[in-house]
Amino acid sequence: MEKFTIKDLYKDTETFADKEISLAGWVRTNRNSKTFGFIELNDGSFFKNVQVVYDTTLSNFNDLVKLTISSSIHVTGVLVKTPEAKQPFEVRATNVTIECLSPNDYPLQKKGHTVEFLREQAYLRPRTNLFSAVFRIRSAAAIAIHNYFQSKGYVYFHAPLITANDGEGAGEMFQVTTLDLDKVASSGKVDYDKDFFGKHVGLTVTGQLEGEAFAMAYGKIYTFGPSFRAENSNTKTHASEFWMIEPEIAFCDLDELMDIEEDMLKYIVKDVLERCPEEMEFLNKFIAPNLIEKLQKLLTSKFTRITHEDVITILKDAKVDWEFKPEYGEDIAKEHEKYITEYFNGPVFITNWPKDIKAFYMKQNADGKTVAAVDLEVPGAGELMGGSQREENYDKLLNRMHELGMKTSELDWYLNLRKYGSCVHSGFGMGFERLLIYLTGVENIRDVIPFPRTPGNCEF
Amino acid sequence: MEKFTIKDLYKDTETFADKEISLAGWVRTNRNSKTFGFIELNDGSFFKNVQVVYDTTLSNFNDLVKLTISSSIHVTGVLVKTPEAKQPFEVRATNVTIECLSPNDYPLQKKGHTVEFLREQAYLRPRTNLFSAVFRIRSAAAIAIHNYFQSKGYVYFHAPLITANDGEGAGEMFQVTTLDLDKVASSGKVDYDKDFFGKHVGLTVTGQLEGEAFAMAYGKIYTFGPSFRAENSNTKTHASEFWMIEPEIAFCDLDELMDIEEDMLKYIVKDVLERCPEEMEFLNKFIAPNLIEKLQKLLTSKFTRITHEDVITILKDAKVDWEFKPEYGEDIAKEHEKYITEYFNGPVFITNWPKDIKAFYMKQNADGKTVAAVDLEVPGAGELMGGSQREENYDKLLNRMHELGMKTSELDWYLNLRKYGSCVHSGFGMGFERLLIYLTGVENIRDVIPFPRTPGNCEF
Repeated sequence: MEKFTIKDLYKDTETFADKEISLAGWVRTNRNSKTFGFIELNDGSFFKNVQVVYDTTLSNFNDLVKLTISSSIHVTGVLVKTPEAKQPFEVRATNVTIECLSPNDYPLQKKGHTVEFLREQAYLRPRTNLFSAVFRIRSAAAIAIHNYFQSKGYVYFHAPLITANDGEGAGEMFQVTTLDLDKVASSGKVDYDKDFFGKHVGLTVTGQLEGEAFAMAYGKIYTFGPSFRAENSNTKTHASEFWMIEPEIAFCDLDELMDIEEDMLKYIVKDVLERCPEEMEFLNKFIAPNLIEKLQKLLTSKFTRITHEDVITILKDAKVDWEFKPEYGEDIAKEHEKYITEYFNGPVFITNWPKDIKAFYMKQNADGKTVAAVDLEVPGAGELMGGSQREENYDKLLNRMHELGMKTSELDWYLNLRKYGSCVHSGFGMGFERLLIYLTGVENIRDVIPFPRTPGNCEF
Repeated sequence: MEKFTIKDLYKDTETFADKEISLAGWVRTNRNSKTFGFIELNDGSFFKNVQVVYDTTLSNFNDLVKLTISSSIHVTGVLVKTPEAKQPFEVRATNVTIECLSPNDYPLQKKGHTVEFLREQAYLRPRTNLFSAVFRIRSAAAIAIHNYFQSKGYVYFHAPLITANDGEGAGEMFQVTTLDLDKVASSGKVDYDKDFFGKHVGLTVTGQLEGEAFAMAYGKIYTFGPSFRAENSNTKTHASEFWMIEPEIAFCDLDELMDIEEDMLKYIVKDVLERCPEEMEFLNKFIAPNLIEKLQKLLTSKFTRITHEDVITILKDAKVDWEFKPEYGEDIAKEHEKYITEYFNGPVFITNWPKDIKAFYMKQNADGKTVAAVDLEVPGAGELMGGSQREENYDKLLNRMHELGMKTSELDWYLNLRKYGSCVHSGFGMGFERLLIYLTGVENIRDVIPFPRTPGNCEF
């Protein structure tokens, strides 16, 4: 008999009503009396389970009552609609075969578990409701991002991961090597001529620089790939390995860039709400009250656009006892981000940042003090995207690199992009996990990455 | 005036005919006489250029005749259909402004260049016809892959990149570290307690093991992410950094796996042929004669399924003077792959390989000698996918790991998947660049990766 999925049954219940169907999946719960029992079965195709009813007419009834959580089984039965019950239908089993009976030491027994415990069981946690929802939304959001950019004519570009460039100049790169460290220790010298690439290389912190090269050929490109930071910070929003989306657009200034960021975010939110209603309802109910309302409100809100200077003025005028005092020419703190999104009651683009706290490649404004950078702050999640118009003038870019004491030898090619058909162009980066925190209401980045890597943690 | 793209003009020529439109892009060629000139303009939105005609009615005519290759310009003009000419329409310029005049040292002047030279100019090569086609197909193929799996209900899963597991057991991992190698050399010792993750870690060679964990929750998952091999081989088909697609399916045996592989490949080929007709025509004409015919033939061919043993028998019976003599129980060489796809005149699944030349996780067949592995060989590109049914029995898997002298401590969790709801399951891996070599007819893997990494090469 053709195998169906639980998703098929939910999406097309009428077709299957009163028909015999076959399923394979895992036992989520098993309750029973002396003459009948109920299995909540999940096959991973859908967030919801299906209820399987079995009774003593089955020859292996005595085995079925002993079925443990997470056991794998095959079920044949008749789909019966149950309009008066909690679930819209159930499957009355005509045959159940057991493929693997899980032992009782299965770590995720029925009782609730803390997210901290579940992190230690990262290989099993997608079997729980919370993580089942989170990682299905992760998949859906990834596809929404691809669909958005593809529908707008962007080319998907794979930036290199191993690189000699520290694109952000922050010095927080992991080193990649094939040198035998024991031999380095015993020989007393580091010979990069013998290393795999013949030089000191590391893991990329951004694909932007290479992305700009491709934007100068395709007009519009986006990356969607891993990025790495060897930053020793243990916060809820930092991971050592994460995924980034970095669009780069030729003939695009800062205003047009903000249009794109706003349009993209609304598209993703709308698409995920439509495609994952069961998951979003679960999160709204058990994890983040008002999550759906927050996201729906975003769809119709107009994002505020304001300069960094005007933001500081608002913060200074606020009758708030700041932990960090807001200052012109300086960065803003988490408490300021929160205040400003509440002040405008929605997402806020903050533009024209002090150049000294931003990266070398940003377009230098005429005032000599600021750059054409933009951060997007969203209610409840803080900074979601960071972008800028790029400095397209060769001499200005070179001077800025010299001012910052950067070596230009590895970035000759990047400078050359300002000689050969340079144009006004802009781009932004969005941390995929930051987006997921915003979309799911889950607070810790460790809980939106399948197998997170943080300082001291590299399990699985 | 609203800006349009060259793609808009090609896709909707009738709408724009005799109307004034605006474009921004780069000069591909510029020919002129004393009174008029022709610019081939490309904006990256489309493989083809648009011809811009300008004449002395433009006040900056004398500047326009000096426009160099790769200069960036803005054009306003009227779209005029030219049914009798080579191109279906042209744009008669009413205004052209120059954003950046490229200097004459632009490395890609009009004359042809070798692919070897263009590799050194990797940041500029997407501006050539060949690489413009290749990397647009790369983007299209990536999306075709996502669309295939999403439409079939698979969950997109991001496997970790930094890991302590050598999933293939081949020992070809790059090490990732934040230890200061100069200090390691001077101190004479390697202290992993001080390393970022507190232990020896490296870059993943496969996401399969983690993928299996997620398949046991979602039923069907696929990865699409980077993979790394510190293998010192300089061949046309090896890169140190590449992208892999690794689907994993619960309740799926080897035969069903082959169904999926065949279905997926046909879907991708069909989709790319439909979405990139201009690029495929170019490649068919200038790079790989009969490319389109080869791919179209694949769509209707039935893939052969044959055991490794039967393949060896065919090879032994062949009247061919082999460089490598085919032997039962041993791997097959490139010349054998080529022969067998020609013998069956199409793609061939070779199943049930000798266990000693395959990985530890593969399902052990009853004969005690072979495993339920399958390689897909395609005409003209050799091995395109490698997959297997996975060993779902805890004891058999553990014994095999012991036989191979593997440490099981880091893979306890992987073994546990065989305790907690284990089931028949299968998966395969497809190197994305191998697929692109097959799709584009380009022979060298360095020419289908934007910025390739190979031994001794880590530029840009």
